[in-house]
Parts: sequence; C-alpha cells; structure tokens
Amino acid sequence: MATKTRTEASVRSTAEIPLRPATPWQTDQVTTAGRIPLTLTQPSTPGRLFPPKAFVGEAVPFGVTAFREGHDLIGVHLRLFSPSGAESLHRLTALGDGFDRWSVLVAPLEQGTWTFRFEGFADDFATWEHAADLKIAAGVDVPLMREMGALLFDRARDERSRPNAERSALEAAAATLRDPEVGVEGALAVVRDPEIAAFFAERPLQSLVTIGAAKELLVERERAGVGAWYEFFPRSEGARRFKNGTVKSGTFRTAKKRLPGVAGMGFDVVYLPPIHPIGRVNRKGRNNTLEALPGDPGSPYAIGAAEGGHDAIHPELGTVADFRSFVRAAEKEGLEVALDLALQAAPDHPWVTEHPEWFTVLPDGTIAYAENPPKKYQDIYPLNFDTDPEGIYAEMLRIVRYWIAQGVKIFRVDNPHTKPLQFWEWLIATVNAEDPDVIFLAEAFTRPAVMQSLAMVGFQQSYSYFTWRNTKEELEEFLSSISNETSDFMRPNLFVNTHDILTQYLQYGGRPAYKIRAAIAATAGATYGVYAGYELYENVARPGSEENIDNEKYEFKFRDWEKAEADGDSLAPYLRRLNEIRRAHPALRQLRGLSVHWSDDDAILVYSKHLPAAVSESGVADTIVVVANVDPHSARQTMVHLDPRAFGIEPGESFEVEDLITGATWTWSTSNFVRLDSFTEPVHILHVKGTR
Amino acid sequence: MATKTRTEASVRSTAEIPLRPATPWQTDQVTTAGRIPLTLTQPSTPGRLFPPKAFVGEAVPFGVTAFREGHDLIGVHLRLFSPSGAESLHRLTALGDGFDRWSVLVAPLEQGTWTFRFEGFADDFATWEHAADLKIAAGVDVPLMREMGALLFDRARDERSRPNAERSALEAAAATLRDPEVGVEGALAVVRDPEIAAFFAERPLQSLVTIGAAKELLVERERAGVGAWYEFFPRSEGARRFKNGTVKSGTFRTAKKRLPGVAGMGFDVVYLPPIHPIGRVNRKGRNNTLEALPGDPGSPYAIGAAEGGHDAIHPELGTVADFRSFVRAAEKEGLEVALDLALQAAPDHPWVTEHPEWFTVLPDGTIAYAENPPKKYQDIYPLNFDTDPEGIYAEMLRIVRYWIAQGVKIFRVDNPHTKPLQFWEWLIATVNAEDPDVIFLAEAFTRPAVMQSLAMVGFQQSYSYFTWRNTKEELEEFLSSISNETSDFMRPNLFVNTHDILTQYLQYGGRPAYKIRAAIAATAGATYGVYAGYELYENVARPGSEENIDNEKYEFKFRDWEKAEADGDSLAPYLRRLNEIRRAHPALRQLRGLSVHWSDDDAILVYSKHLPAAVSESGVADTIVVVANVDPHSARQTMVHLDPRAFGIEPGESFEVEDLITGATWTWSTSNFVRLDSFTEPVHILHVKGTR
Repeated sequence: MATKTRTEASVRSTAEIPLRPATPWQTDQVTTAGRIPLTLTQPSTPGRLFPPKAFVGEAVPFGVTAFREGHDLIGVHLRLFSPSGAESLHRLTALGDGFDRWSVLVAPLEQGTWTFRFEGFADDFATWEHAADLKIAAGVDVPLMREMGALLFDRARDERSRPNAERSALEAAAATLRDPEVGVEGALAVVRDPEIAAFFAERPLQSLVTIGAAKELLVERERAGVGAWYEFFPRSEGARRFKNGTVKSGTFRTAKKRLPGVAGMGFDVVYLPPIHPIGRVNRKGRNNTLEALPGDPGSPYAIGAAEGGHDAIHPELGTVADFRSFVRAAEKEGLEVALDLALQAAPDHPWVTEHPEWFTVLPDGTIAYAENPPKKYQDIYPLNFDTDPEGIYAEMLRIVRYWIAQGVKIFRVDNPHTKPLQFWEWLIATVNAEDPDVIFLAEAFTRPAVMQSLAMVGFQQSYSYFTWRNTKEELEEFLSSISNETSDFMRPNLFVNTHDILTQYLQYGGRPAYKIRAAIAATAGATYGVYAGYELYENVARPGSEENIDNEKYEFKFRDWEKAEADGDSLAPYLRRLNEIRRAHPALRQLRGLSVHWSDDDAILVYSKHLPAAVSESGVADTIVVVANVDPHSARQTMVHLDPRAFGIEPGESFEVEDLITGATWTWSTSNFVRLDSFTEPVHILHVKGTR
Repeated sequence: MATKTRTEASVRSTAEIPLRPATPWQTDQVTTAGRIPLTLTQPSTPGRLFPPKAFVGEAVPFGVTAFREGHDLIGVHLRLFSPSGAESLHRLTALGDGFDRWSVLVAPLEQGTWTFRFEGFADDFATWEHAADLKIAAGVDVPLMREMGALLFDRARDERSRPNAERSALEAAAATLRDPEVGVEGALAVVRDPEIAAFFAERPLQSLVTIGAAKELLVERERAGVGAWYEFFPRSEGARRFKNGTVKSGTFRTAKKRLPGVAGMGFDVVYLPPIHPIGRVNRKGRNNTLEALPGDPGSPYAIGAAEGGHDAIHPELGTVADFRSFVRAAEKEGLEVALDLALQAAPDHPWVTEHPEWFTVLPDGTIAYAENPPKKYQDIYPLNFDTDPEGIYAEMLRIVRYWIAQGVKIFRVDNPHTKPLQFWEWLIATVNAEDPDVIFLAEAFTRPAVMQSLAMVGFQQSYSYFTWRNTKEELEEFLSSISNETSDFMRPNLFVNTHDILTQYLQYGGRPAYKIRAAIAATAGATYGVYAGYELYENVARPGSEENIDNEKYEFKFRDWEKAEADGDSLAPYLRRLNEIRRAHPALRQLRGLSVHWSDDDAILVYSKHLPAAVSESGVADTIVVVANVDPHSARQTMVHLDPRAFGIEPGESFEVEDLITGATWTWSTSNFVRLDSFTEPVHILHVKGTR
C-alpha cells in the first residue's frame, strides 16, 4: 500500500511499500561483493555503458540476482528516485526459478533520468517464521523459538517507523508467545498470523542491510515508445495531372486536407519524407532510372539545390509559413509531424560549394559519390564527418534546431548507420538536453550490433526486421526478442511497409496479408507505422525488387482515398478499428508484457499482452490475446493452448473473451478451439475479462 | 610474426604482429561511443564487476564487437600488457557471423594481473584494395583508383615503423600504379599482390584509431586450472585393526607410504580431509549415527577438541613435524598437498570458550547448532561472521597463513556457500596478495548464481555438477557450458566421486561406469579428481542415499591397493594411462577449446579438444577426439559426425587417428563408424594427427 495517493505518485508499482531510510551494515573490509550480494541488475544494456530506457507509464520489470550464504532468508527492496526527487520503495519477489532472481514491476510516471538501486537484507522475521513454524510443530526448541519470536516482536515494536496500530498488535503477539498458558496451537497461530506477516511484508525487520550501486534509467515521453505512424509524401496530396501529362505538385496547403483523414483513422504521427529542395544534377527519373525526364520531380533524398539545402523548403511545397501552418493543422487533429533527417547532399546542395571539407575530396579534385563498389550513386554525395568534425557537427545541430523551432519534435533519421555512431550520441544528447521531448527514429536496416548500438547511444525508436518476419516461427522469435531481450534499450517501430519496402509477403499474399500484418503490427509492438497506399493494397513491385513499382520517391502518386473506401476497396476501416482498439487498451501501448503462447497449427500465431491492475493508469488490469492466421491463403482451425498465468489467471480457470474486431464473445480456458479464415477475419484480437 | 623469439615472449598468439604505438583519433566531442565502437569485450564476467581469469599457458579467446558506419573496412588490434610490463600487439579476425564479432586466441605466459585493450581503426589499405579490385576490373574510375593506391603506398612508405625492405617494395608498387605503360592486368596484379597484403596485415595503414577502455585479466599459476587430484584420508593409510576389534589410526608417517602409489598413477595433487583434532561432544558414529561408540574416530569435519582447533593436528596423525615431512615427501613425488578448510567447530573447539562471539548465542544462552529446520546437527557449531567480523576475519586469515607456513599452497574449502561471499573475496585477495600461488577450491554444491559468484570473487577452482551429469544430453550441455559460457571466471574440478558423493550412475553402472566417468573427467575438464576407493570400484551406498555405505568420514577404511591391482580388480592402471595421456597432450590441459560433435546414437558422446600450434608450448598443434559410450550396460555402434574445422581441418579431408587407450589407428574423415563396448573399452581417446 502506497503512502501517497495514486494521483500524487511518481510511479505505479505491483509492490510499493512505505518509504523508510536504509541503514547499511558495514564491515571495515572493503570488498566489491556486498554483505548480501546484489548483481546483474535489470533494466540494463549489454555492456552496461549506456543507461537503459523506458517511457512514461511503461511497466518496467526491475530485477536483481540476490542471495546470501546458508539457509537464512533475505528480502530485497528497490529504491527509486524520480528526476524531481520523489523517492519510493518497492518490495521484490523471489522468482523461485533456482537462479536467485528477484523482480518487481514498476511504471515510472515522470520524464527524465531516474536513479534506482536495490537493497538486500537479512529478513529476520521470515527466517524465524520459517524455523518456528517447523520446529514448534515438531516440538523442537519450542520455548526458545517462542522467546526468539517475542524478542523479534519487541524489536519491531521499538522501530521508529512502526505505526501505532502495529505496535500494540506486536506487543500482544509477544505476550502470547511468552504466556506459559498458551500451548503449541496458540503459539503456531501467532507464527502463522497473516496480519503479522503483512506488517513485516510492508516493514520487514532488517539486518545486514546492503545497498547496491546506484543505476540510471532514462524515462522519455510516452510518444518515444507509443504511437501509430502514417507516412505520406506531401507533394502527392493535392497533386494535379493535366491533360498534356504535366503535373502540378501538391503543396503543404493541399496536403493539409489529408490530415483529417489520417487523424480519422486514429494515427498519432504523420511522417513526411524530406521536404527540401531537390537536386537537379544527376537527378533520378521514375523507377530509379539514371536520367530524369522533364517534369520528373526527383527523389526528395537528393537534398539541396540552388533554392537551398536542409534548412529550406522545396518551393513547390510552399513556404516556411505554409509548413508551420501544416504543423499547426496537424496539432489540431491530434497529430505530431515527423520530419525526415537525411544527412546527405545532391551535387548542387549549397554545402558542396560552401563547405567542400564536409565531403570526401578525391585525389582528382572531384567529390566522392555514394557508392557500393563498383556501383556509384551519382545523385548523392555522402558527408564526411572526419575532416571538419567540429564544423559539420555544429551544422547538423543547427539544422535540427531550426526545424525544432518550426514546431517539429520528431525526426525520422535516414540511414543513421552510414554516419559515425558517436555523432548520433553527441547530437541526440545535445538536442535532448535542450528539449527532452524531441524523438529520433533510426532507419537502420543493417546488422544487429549496429542497430542495437544506435538505440543504445540515444535513438528513441528504431525501424526493425519486422517486415521480414512473416512466418509463425519467425514472428514468435522476433516478438519475444523485442519485448524481452532488447526492450531495455530498443523500441522497434513496426512499420508494415515503407516507400522502400514492399515485401514478397505483401506482393503475393493478397488483401488478407495486409490485414494480418496490420493487426500484428498494431498489437504486438507499442509503436507501429503504415506508409500511404497500404490501405489501398498497393502490392505491385518493381520486377525483382522488394519495393513498389513506380516508387513514389521518384514521381507523384494520385490516390482517391474516399472512392476506395466507398467501393469497399480500402483497409482504412480496419486500420481505424485497430487504432481504436489501441486507444482503448493500454496493454497494447506497452512494449513489454508480451508472452507467446502455443497453438497446434504451424501458421496460427498466439500471443498475449498484459498490463496488471497495479501498474495500469485506470487501476484496472488490461489483457489482450491475439490469435493470428499468418498464412494469408488459407482457412485454418486448431487448438490454442494458453498459459493464463501470463495474465494472472490460474491454469484451468475459465474466463470470458471478446473479439474486438467482430464483437463475438466466448468462454475460454487453457485450451481453446479456433477457426481463422484469412479471406474473412484472419485475426482474433481478444479482450480477456476479469484479469488482475 | 613476433618481434620476440618464442622463449622471450610473454604470450603465445595466433596473430601476434609487430609492436607499434597507437595514435588515437579525437574529436572535441566527448562521447561514450568511440569513433570505431568497441563493445562487449571478452574475456569478461557477468556484470563486469570482477576481472576474468586465466592460467599460465591457457589459450584465451579475446573478442570484441567492433564496426563502423557505412561500407569502409576496419581492423581491430588487441594490445596486451603483461604484469611485468611486456607489451604485445595482436591482430583480430572478423568472425563473419553477422554479429560484428572479432577474435584472436592468445595464451598469456606470465602470472599476475594483465591489462588488455582493443584498438579499432579504419583499415585504409583494405578499403582501397576492396574498391580497387572491383572498380579497376569493371573499368570504373581506373586512373583515380590507381592514384589513390599509389598515394596509400607513399603514405605507408613514410611511416617510421615501416621496415626498409617494405619501403622499397611499396615504392616500386606505387611506381607501377602510376606508370601509364602498365595496363589493367598490371595494376590489378599490384592490388592483388599477396606480399603487399602481408605488409599491411602486419602494419596496417590506420586512421580514425580508437582506443578501447583498459580491462584486466587475472592470470594464475597453471595448477589453478590444471591438475589431477587424488583424495585420501591419512588416518586410513596404515591403520591397523587388532583381533579385539580396536583400530590403531594411520599416521602421517604411515600415510606417507601411499604417496608413491598416488604419484605412480600420475596424479598431481593429494587432497586430505581435515587433519585437526576431532570433537568429542556429540561425536557422530559410523554411518552418521548420532551416538559414537568407543573407538569411533568421528568426522574430521567436527573440528576442534581439547587438543586444539584449526591450527592443530590430530594427535593420532602425528605432529606438525610429521605433517611437514609428509608435505616434503609429497613434493619429492611431484605431488602438492591440498588441505581442507572447513570453517566450523565441534562444541569442544577452543574457540567456543575463548570466542563465543564468533558463534550465534541464542536467547537461552546456548550456542546455535548447524540446522536445517527442524533438523539439527549437534556435532557442529557454525561460525557467525557478523558479530565480530574484524576478529573472525583475522583469525581465519591467521589459520590460512599458518598452514601456508607449513608448506600448503592449496586449500579445498568446505561449504564456502555457508559463509559470507564478501568474506571469501577479502580472504582470497589478502592471501593472494601475499602469495599469488595459493589456490582455493570451492566445495559449493548449490545454486548456479552462488557457485558462479564464489568463482568470480576469487576461488581458483570449483566443484561442479559433473557427478550428476551422466547422460549424453546432460554432458553435452554441461561440457559446452564449462568450456565456453563460464570459462572466463569458473574452473570446474571434475571430481568423479567424493567421500560424500556416490551417484546412482556409479552405484548401478558396474565397472564400466567407473571407466567411462574417469575417461570423461580426465579429458573434458582441465582439472579433475578421484577419491580413494574409486579405483576399487567401491559402489555400495548407504541405502537411500548418494554416499558410500560405511562412509570413511566416520570410520577407518582398510584397502589393499596392491592386491586389487594384482588380481585385476583395480582401475588404477586405467587411471595411470589417463594421466599419462593428459601429460602427453596439452589440449587436455586446457579448459577452453572443447567442441561437442554429433553422433547418431543417443548414448555416444563425442567431443574434441584442440590447441592450435600457434598457442601450444611445443609449437605443434594438439588435438584429441573423445568418443564415449555413456551407457555402461551396452555395446553400441553408430556413425560419428565431426566438424573438423574445430581442429583446423576442412570438411571432407581425411586424417589419421590413434586410440591412446588401445593403440589402434584408423583413417578418419567427417563421418566415421564406431563400435564401443562398455564391457571392454567404452571410450575412444583419439589423437588426431596433422592438425594445425
């Protein structure tokens, strides 16, 4: 029971106890191991060089390996200090897995850097209770055990922090143990008194108190970990094609009209590919051809032209004022705008003439193109961060600050793995010191060590391998990994597609594939994303590639959202429902708390997400079970086998579930029959009633 | 190629290169990540609070996760500083496993605390070589790539550390690249010149040099990790039973006569259970009965009586002079003596009256017995380390120093997990600061976290779960774990039995079981042990227990070693052969370097141990493949499938193997037929010829 009310609290916790100071036990001998060893603290990052991360309201398992010599019992507390200094104490539970792990679930509610430490102690009451229970019942050392208990109660009574009500109860208990008239039954009743046990659970009788090393936890705003993203190219929204084949670009003014539609689907973030002037030198044509034809708008990733560079807006999109107005309009719709940060230049970017030292100048005096030898990408010059690090670092910071000043708080960073890792650490730390609300999403599709390092040095979110994890087995491993192994430092944003990624699963899976992937992305990760056109089932790839034909990067797209929806050819209603479900169910807005369950079918994926009542904002537990047929070409029926302990229900108990897609309700238990037809509803999203 | 000769070297290494200083690349920006990130260094301990460990001559894999942004290539070096300050540099190889791990195998040859660090750098030659090879062949940027190469060669030539011979070759190569008469073929010949590649492998052309954090590696003497142990009770050796049933105890003088036999079997260490006076109060009788009969000698673990405590010798065993003479005699036989350190007291130990504060005094004034409630062990008082830590720490140190002064360098510590972890950290550090040759073996049969923590805080060796790992599946997992996951900090001593452990496998497996377990223990771990009587196949347990009937702890044992051997009823010849094989084969004296291989039979266990030539003292590689039928009741035949890359042979190559038990030789390849009859020879110990 907390001493503070829920609204005042800096945390929600499964086991908050009254705050008390800890008085450490000390020997004169200085050792690394404490009197009660406390090791392998969690949350943590591999190598323990960077702080672990959480977001406001995220239920974080805090854990430690703790034990002592011999048979005496110990207790472990977690002491938390919020950024504003609010201190709280939490009781850990031994997992009983044979590995001496202790754990408690706590949701921090304040943004900033938290400090936490574990405190181990000999639990003198628990040790006595265990021995007294066995020995008094066995008739061994009975007077001694009774007197030892009475002495413990005396000691507890004299503790300054002990409430008066407990004091009198403890005095009475001590008297009972010392009363020669009271027999074995009466003494055992004291030993087993649940009220007394509760006193000591809240305020244990401690000795050999050992205080572990202080650790930090970086708690970021909720959007760092939770959100539904929607990507679109503003130039396509409101673009007009004339009879002579020429196209007039959409603008921020016309693109603004798309915002209510995006907000209406329930998204939280609109992400725009780069909005800067596009290079004319070596501009790419449609479908990534080397020569642009007249009227081809070029890739917005070839940034910079005579009109300006990374701090300019493409003249065809409008002015800075138009952009600010777009951001304000998004805000009114409850949407945040995410800008693309693509740190590279077209050959006609102003940097090239003003700062050739920011590029790699070759022995022949030319600037090096981006390349993957022997291939060269002649529309782009990569930056060189090593010839003038001070100058280029300052310029990158200036650009980010400029867009923050225009109201942008989220940056989707293009290919961060092609820039020095330490640059990102510096940039993100510097920006977040000025404004901790700024969020950076890493678009690094590369090797695990690199992706994880980018997350550890500061990126709030990361693109992930999700698009390429499509089978049940792949998804089980992937979902376990993101919600457990890497969740202390990496928050994957589960994009179902991007302007560069149209997987074979979507190319060949038909409309069911689009439903399946959206349902999993929206429910398995806390943050997910969709690139415009997904709801229109755009599934034709450039032959031999994993990207859309007529990639929007190189041309305008003309889409009629309303007509598709009216004709029943749009996934928008399904996306809308998914986002509604996400808003109604806080368990789905958690990265952790996911458990994979069993089914007898090799294409029926089952997982649950559970938020216990004690760490839920409403004080009510929230549990969702997702059962997905990941084979988009089939109807399948099978048995699903749940471990309901994952959501606080004992195996064998039955419980009510409601399918949040269809409204159907069933009574479920550990093993349940399901039938999922990909051509109608391939996914159950089940709300489990009555969990704790 | 090392700059030092092998005899001068402080290390053996698979990739030592000439020593050069490193000049770090720096930005003004202070970040935790370096320019070339270097993380997750190995060797390391879980939690990274304690230094990893190795022993002199142990081949240790040094590893690190290293990468850089983009496509340019990097190199990684390991810089080692020996305790005496000898510095060496080693080139790491990328494992190419997709996880950006780099590794090199190095054997430190000097005892003490080493310092190591990794250095990452942009490998400018490798980046150019890769691009030039592809681009010149494809006709892309040919003059540019040639000039870039020539400039690299100019830069290399001007490096101060470059040998003159290399300088002229580099000048010639640069001239070739710049010669307009030389065509594509000639230029590519320079790019692909193995001699030039070798120059740059030894002295790479570095930029962006990043120096990782310095780490420590504790290198202990070889016996800390390698040895064959033999346990016996000195009181049984030379004990005489008279016609009236009374027994005269053996003494150090009579026990000394057993030493040539132990040495003759090839053991390295004789371990003696406690040799101190045995308590008379509540002395245990035979088979752990509560009442000792007259003449029962009592358990040597109930230490202390009127004659003295932990610094005294049991009068029936002799005097301190006799003990010293025993130690000297052992030394002459090439044996070290290990003493038991059992920190507990019989009720009549002098401590009990002189220092009651070192025990737990109960409210009724009595001292607490050892107990596992409701059971009590009334022959033993456990120590309490918390009432007078300074006093008791000092006394324990005094005792250890006393026995060190009598010539003891090895202590087998009884139940260390019942004393505070931090006490052991302090004791071992204090003793090893005075004498780094002293070795402590932890007899902690308890939970993994506790066993591993004892190893991390200082114990040089640990008893392990080996006795209870008997099936193929159990052994595969166990052997992988001890030789990989925990080998940076824990060295299991694979005892096949102890005076307290006679497993069901030995009870019911017959004589074959004894052969199988000895062969695996002697070859799988670098250190193993046998308790006397094992060679006599003593396999009768006290009913319902996992210990010998008529446990030697509570009585004398009378064994006729010579007669058993003469009658063919002794395993001694087999143990002798195992120890001969261990002495002849350095791969068997390595904890790491074990690989588990495949067989088609669920009882045929296969593993190899390999020591590459570069890290072997002789300069010759040593490889052993063990194939064991772990079902002691059967003859089995099956196919064994090796991955010969584990010992430097390509799959499909054939190679000669010799069975070191029988002398049989075969030509083997990847897949091989075996037949192993438990009733004759259940185990092949195969020496693989011609490995690298």
